[in-house]
Amino acid sequence: MSNLSSRLSELIGKPVHQIDTPALVIDLDAMKRNLGRMAEFAKKHHIRWRPHAKLHKSVLLAKMQLKAGAVGVCVQKTSEAEIMVAGGVHNVYISNEVIAPAKLARVAALTQAVAPHQGQIAMAVDSLEGVTRLAQAMTEARIGGRSPATVIDVFVELDVGQGRCGVEPGMALSLAMEIRKHPALRFVGLQAYHGKAQHLRSAQERRVAIASAVDAVVATRQLLEAQGLRAGLVTGSGTGSLVLEAASGVYGELQAGSFMFMDADYAQNERDPAQPQFEHALFVKTQVISVHSGHAVCDAGHKSHAIDSGLPKVHAFDEKSQLEYFNGGDEHGILRPSEGNTRLPGLGQMLWLVPGHCDPTVNLHDAMIGVKGGLRQGTVERIIAVDARGAMT
Amino acid sequence: MSNLSSRLSELIGKPVHQIDTPALVIDLDAMKRNLGRMAEFAKKHHIRWRPHAKLHKSVLLAKMQLKAGAVGVCVQKTSEAEIMVAGGVHNVYISNEVIAPAKLARVAALTQAVAPHQGQIAMAVDSLEGVTRLAQAMTEARIGGRSPATVIDVFVELDVGQGRCGVEPGMALSLAMEIRKHPALRFVGLQAYHGKAQHLRSAQERRVAIASAVDAVVATRQLLEAQGLRAGLVTGSGTGSLVLEAASGVYGELQAGSFMFMDADYAQNERDPAQPQFEHALFVKTQVISVHSGHAVCDAGHKSHAIDSGLPKVHAFDEKSQLEYFNGGDEHGILRPSEGNTRLPGLGQMLWLVPGHCDPTVNLHDAMIGVKGGLRQGTVERIIAVDARGAMT
Repeated sequence: MSNLSSRLSELIGKPVHQIDTPALVIDLDAMKRNLGRMAEFAKKHHIRWRPHAKLHKSVLLAKMQLKAGAVGVCVQKTSEAEIMVAGGVHNVYISNEVIAPAKLARVAALTQAVAPHQGQIAMAVDSLEGVTRLAQAMTEARIGGRSPATVIDVFVELDVGQGRCGVEPGMALSLAMEIRKHPALRFVGLQAYHGKAQHLRSAQERRVAIASAVDAVVATRQLLEAQGLRAGLVTGSGTGSLVLEAASGVYGELQAGSFMFMDADYAQNERDPAQPQFEHALFVKTQVISVHSGHAVCDAGHKSHAIDSGLPKVHAFDEKSQLEYFNGGDEHGILRPSEGNTRLPGLGQMLWLVPGHCDPTVNLHDAMIGVKGGLRQGTVERIIAVDARGAMT
Repeated sequence: MSNLSSRLSELIGKPVHQIDTPALVIDLDAMKRNLGRMAEFAKKHHIRWRPHAKLHKSVLLAKMQLKAGAVGVCVQKTSEAEIMVAGGVHNVYISNEVIAPAKLARVAALTQAVAPHQGQIAMAVDSLEGVTRLAQAMTEARIGGRSPATVIDVFVELDVGQGRCGVEPGMALSLAMEIRKHPALRFVGLQAYHGKAQHLRSAQERRVAIASAVDAVVATRQLLEAQGLRAGLVTGSGTGSLVLEAASGVYGELQAGSFMFMDADYAQNERDPAQPQFEHALFVKTQVISVHSGHAVCDAGHKSHAIDSGLPKVHAFDEKSQLEYFNGGDEHGILRPSEGNTRLPGLGQMLWLVPGHCDPTVNLHDAMIGVKGGLRQGTVERIIAVDARGAMT
């Protein structure tokens, strides 16, 4: 892909219309405003924020977030953590279960690679076997590594309504007690992420969901305290519900990541009045390659944007009319005028799509093209590598 | 990603159980059988086959197909064509419209890069403007390039029922006549690909769809012949309908690609008795990272397989029971026993998923791990790079 890299680098300083398609483009001004809004929100609510780097998979954007006040980043995969640490991002929380001994050895190696003054590696667990395997890997790394006293921070994951990973309060107590038996593991708190709540459309439904997550956290805290244990930090939340966790009084850390780019899907949520006004900042630039009676075809299909949370929206095609995007397969999008309109774009016309879901969309691209000065008149400012693209293990 | 590459290379010669997850694995024996069946089918029907390399995006697999008798490969993107040519695959057909002048200059440069004794570049068109722009790019390349006489083969794309790109017979005639005006363009035939027909479940529905495609081809041929033009080669077809195009008497070339790997989606089609018995040969290896009452969670979500044509199927979990895969987001899959079963896999258990759609699944991975000797007892034979992964422009 070195051809692609050099082709992209040549764009720096060039006007936006020279970006060939399809391409993933960041409106850097909008992204910066989103970042400022999040920093301000966290400050106002006296809450830590540790944005999820699974969104952007970029060391550069992670560092931009740290500079704006984030305490570190979350990742989902060991390989993502490795790429962040190698890039100089040292406070990394793998907010997911890791079970394979080969991967746990890599996690333990990361704890050896990060010096205490630089940062701290953390991981989630939800099984006794998981704790035992992690302890085993840490013990081996302590023997073989440069520091015999390295620890890993461990969060116990609660199932707060997602129905995926995570345990009930009683089991959380058992896991916390087990973690405390191992000198290389440090029980630091609870992960209470409610993924499903993020995409509930009405503010009221989200309130009910997060209230029930808070109940599970409180119940767990009581069990822990009855055994003389502190629940520690409660981490979770996402862009859809962050207002609620921030106001809950029990969450101490927000993991929201998508606010940086704002998915088309999130924009369909009824906005809580307390929610910062995040803007769309990530776009797929595409162009029309075929025009017919009643439809046009563009060159962006689902190899250039993820469709798990719905098809992309066509952004500001025309002041008077709108286009709707229909699935045209891996490499094509079908465009039709939305109801009440008739105008179609012409051959070669450039269009901007707002992806339904930004995380897996970014993962399809090697790089994001950062633009300043807007999508119409702007200039390419920098190329941002998707460092952890395809980092799955 | 050099860490990943070296980690994968170390797997060569190792048993299959050492492959960490998630990982994209080819059962090389099954793939080879699929390839043999396709070669035999084409030979029996006296038809050319030019498999679509958008499936595997691999120079190595393209060469394996050429060796088995394919006349060349199809691609959808200029960048895919560039990667194929750079890798030594010289008969490349871009079976798609290219409109951007910057891309057409690259297409024209490819025609200069391939010597006549090596192969030939071809492209599809469906508009007069597209023809004019291509001719312009070819003229410029002839002046600036090493050969003043280079031509590009041009197919006129018919809309045979897909409702995406392609034109009606009358317009096809106009395009053919326009192409013949430009000395650097050679009108070589018609593209008549019916994408929707591939996924019609009943054999009868597919017969109706392809019969109507054949009608459009015949009508176009008559119009062309009335003007003294030969329709030339008719190219199209896919794994879902290849039996029908092969028997049609009008198609001269099959573009089917998926037969190499066989998607879970294609396996749900009612099989035409004349269709070769293609086997699943591409799998996502995954493992269980969390177990609960009633469900387990594996580490493969839709960042490791595409879900546009349905969720993956769990392959041969257990002789007595079956598992169903449910969407667990970007990095997780939820596994539940299928109806009538209760058994769940244990923590750390390895499982194999058959992707719903192989093309965009391959595009998520940097490499495919080739295994010989089966998924249970086999050995890693080679690592196959996805050379054109993310090649979108």
